[in-house]
Amino acid sequence: MLYQHQIDDIFSEAIGGNGLSQRAFERELEQALPAQAGIKSRHEDGSLPLLRLPAARDDLAALKPHVERLRQFAHVVILGTGGSSLGGQTLAALNDIGFGPAQGAPKLWFMDNVDPATFAELLTRLDLAKTAFVPISKSGGTAETLTQLFVVLEALEAKLGKGKVADHLLTITEPKDNALRKIAQRVGGAILDHDPGVGGRFSVLSLVGLLPAMIAGLDAAAIREGAASVLDPLLAAGEETATAPTTGAALSVALWRERGAGTTVLMPYVDRLAYFGLWFRQLWAESLGKNGYGTTPIRAMGTVDQHSQLQLYLDGPADKLFTLVIRDTAGEGTKIRRAALDGDDSLTYLADRSLGDLLLAEANATAATLARNGRPTRTLRIEHLDERVMGALLMHFMLETIIAADLLRVDAFDQPAVEEGKVLTRKYLAGQK
Amino acid sequence: MLYQHQIDDIFSEAIGGNGLSQRAFERELEQALPAQAGIKSRHEDGSLPLLRLPAARDDLAALKPHVERLRQFAHVVILGTGGSSLGGQTLAALNDIGFGPAQGAPKLWFMDNVDPATFAELLTRLDLAKTAFVPISKSGGTAETLTQLFVVLEALEAKLGKGKVADHLLTITEPKDNALRKIAQRVGGAILDHDPGVGGRFSVLSLVGLLPAMIAGLDAAAIREGAASVLDPLLAAGEETATAPTTGAALSVALWRERGAGTTVLMPYVDRLAYFGLWFRQLWAESLGKNGYGTTPIRAMGTVDQHSQLQLYLDGPADKLFTLVIRDTAGEGTKIRRAALDGDDSLTYLADRSLGDLLLAEANATAATLARNGRPTRTLRIEHLDERVMGALLMHFMLETIIAADLLRVDAFDQPAVEEGKVLTRKYLAGQK
Repeated sequence: MLYQHQIDDIFSEAIGGNGLSQRAFERELEQALPAQAGIKSRHEDGSLPLLRLPAARDDLAALKPHVERLRQFAHVVILGTGGSSLGGQTLAALNDIGFGPAQGAPKLWFMDNVDPATFAELLTRLDLAKTAFVPISKSGGTAETLTQLFVVLEALEAKLGKGKVADHLLTITEPKDNALRKIAQRVGGAILDHDPGVGGRFSVLSLVGLLPAMIAGLDAAAIREGAASVLDPLLAAGEETATAPTTGAALSVALWRERGAGTTVLMPYVDRLAYFGLWFRQLWAESLGKNGYGTTPIRAMGTVDQHSQLQLYLDGPADKLFTLVIRDTAGEGTKIRRAALDGDDSLTYLADRSLGDLLLAEANATAATLARNGRPTRTLRIEHLDERVMGALLMHFMLETIIAADLLRVDAFDQPAVEEGKVLTRKYLAGQK
Repeated sequence: MLYQHQIDDIFSEAIGGNGLSQRAFERELEQALPAQAGIKSRHEDGSLPLLRLPAARDDLAALKPHVERLRQFAHVVILGTGGSSLGGQTLAALNDIGFGPAQGAPKLWFMDNVDPATFAELLTRLDLAKTAFVPISKSGGTAETLTQLFVVLEALEAKLGKGKVADHLLTITEPKDNALRKIAQRVGGAILDHDPGVGGRFSVLSLVGLLPAMIAGLDAAAIREGAASVLDPLLAAGEETATAPTTGAALSVALWRERGAGTTVLMPYVDRLAYFGLWFRQLWAESLGKNGYGTTPIRAMGTVDQHSQLQLYLDGPADKLFTLVIRDTAGEGTKIRRAALDGDDSLTYLADRSLGDLLLAEANATAATLARNGRPTRTLRIEHLDERVMGALLMHFMLETIIAADLLRVDAFDQPAVEEGKVLTRKYLAGQK
């Protein structure tokens, strides 16, 4: 396994009255095992295409020429929001945590909003002659993405002339006659098909996540291998054997049912997992937030949120499940020389310690402090973070989410409530005319 | 007023059973008015120094030479976490939302964590000869900041020689003989005093927030003017007149008491307020999360989180208060020409509309949809976003938080629960030796 799933400090035996009783957990697990078996059959009958992605390789080969073309640009701008953006951002952060892209890779920009002030910056700061744009919308009708694209096309035409625009464009959308596809066909750029059977928030292992990842210089096959390392054991598991995602779903739902834990905090102690937390937030919220159900996901960052949220987590309402992702950073980074402390006794604890030592000590101390204060806490431990481990973490949480939805008897794959706001937006826009 | 506080859709009269009853609100407001009066007396007797900052100007003049010196560098790195970082990041985002600094300003980097992988990037990517470092820690004993500083000093010495390091350093800490001050004195760089009476999460209007702001090219006096525009009416208000922050605190606490709304979502439809949401998150969580009390703050972003969280917000548990910050962006940005739509009827609603039109329509539609689905929703409306408006928003939420703490009978200014984890971190580090 590429990660360890430690759940002891979820239980009341270890942390007291706010913890989960073994009985409630087992009751939930009994329901989760058929849900796990359901994933197995959906893999077999092909009704959930995302389950076939970990083993696929042909599509990656087909992506390669597009990746090579886009890597010639200085900037690649992804136009898209939600599931069209978060998977790519999550993966790209493996190679760029804010200090710029890996050598030879373009800078990736994820434009997931329609703030005109931000767009004005984009259009004046980037040299459009050296910039490619990748609009992504599964339905092809996302108002934000279409509006972004119209603005970009206008700017590209003004700068480069109409004939050149197609070279700067790669469009991803469903193979249907939708608005985005029609625009792309008119402009003339390349178009790639978004799998109609893979919803946005589950699309990270498809070209939606992997194209940006490959542009960033990552090994897409390794990401899928990592995903397979979590999926395959689940597919091979007997009817009575819960794998880690199944256990995770059961404990999360049981804790909500038994103790009213309405919030689930994902707190990686790994800077490169900052977007992973945002990706999880969408996955969990949109998949489960239905019929009055669904715990509220929160992305926290260790150690940063020890200085922002920990007071609340420890001494506020006991309504949260904590999931800490901890990387073994022991010994990493420059060690503080004892001489540098200049005999300051208050700092002796730092002598011969490095940033990595401190990060790991803080992570472990926070996990222990949460448990000591009776807060249900689990840890996902990883030795390092690379494409394979990232793939494993992504698959863990996709499976956990699907099984949790089954336990709550909601459809993990729709999002019916947001339609009303979209209709109203159009009405308001029409009224503005 | 630099913003409008619209609260109609908080009440059950407007949104039904999940809304707040007028009676519960008035009961809470009755308690909030003495809390408001308490702020007035704390301003008068000087016992809450942050209340004197909006009117102060002398300290800004004293900061100027330091700002000018640091603006000679290509990069300025703030070392600090929590309250030492979030205020500065919030303000700096006014001038840099990711596309780089304003003309003539250095690039600001806020290093608020101790991930060794991130630090390795920092030290290899930035030209240290052109980089200044600003360690900020009120107590002077924050383990993360001290460790960061030791690592940086070692790298600077190796690169530039010991004699040059002082030129690259500006330290901010309390005027006490603490570890950080001792290091700064030994190295020889300039040291500025952190006001001992202004806690980290309330320090944005002090040099902690304003020094980075000034380096970024912002008008610090205008930020304070904006803050004064909210504080002054509160100080001038009669005993029976609630100002906006007082109303906000009362409705938030009353909604929690009456309807169990345990989560408070701040959702700006302004990209440049992304860090503002994180700043608020610390302010609210650390100030109120005590004795089992405290609602959990969530930073959301419009429109982005319409594609990530809105399904949960609309159809999940009705346990949230929504605060939308909406800027009047009507007409901003390139308009989509009707001809560009190429007769696609499904897109007619976008004809002659701009990014700003769409953003505003989405914001208003989301506010209306939340209310229609019975979710308590208030809006803070601003016409534009500049230093003065930012100062007003900061002061609004600081006052709202202080009054909410009064209503919950908790101390807004301490954070006792986090001490245990710090002790344990030291123990673990010692054990690693």
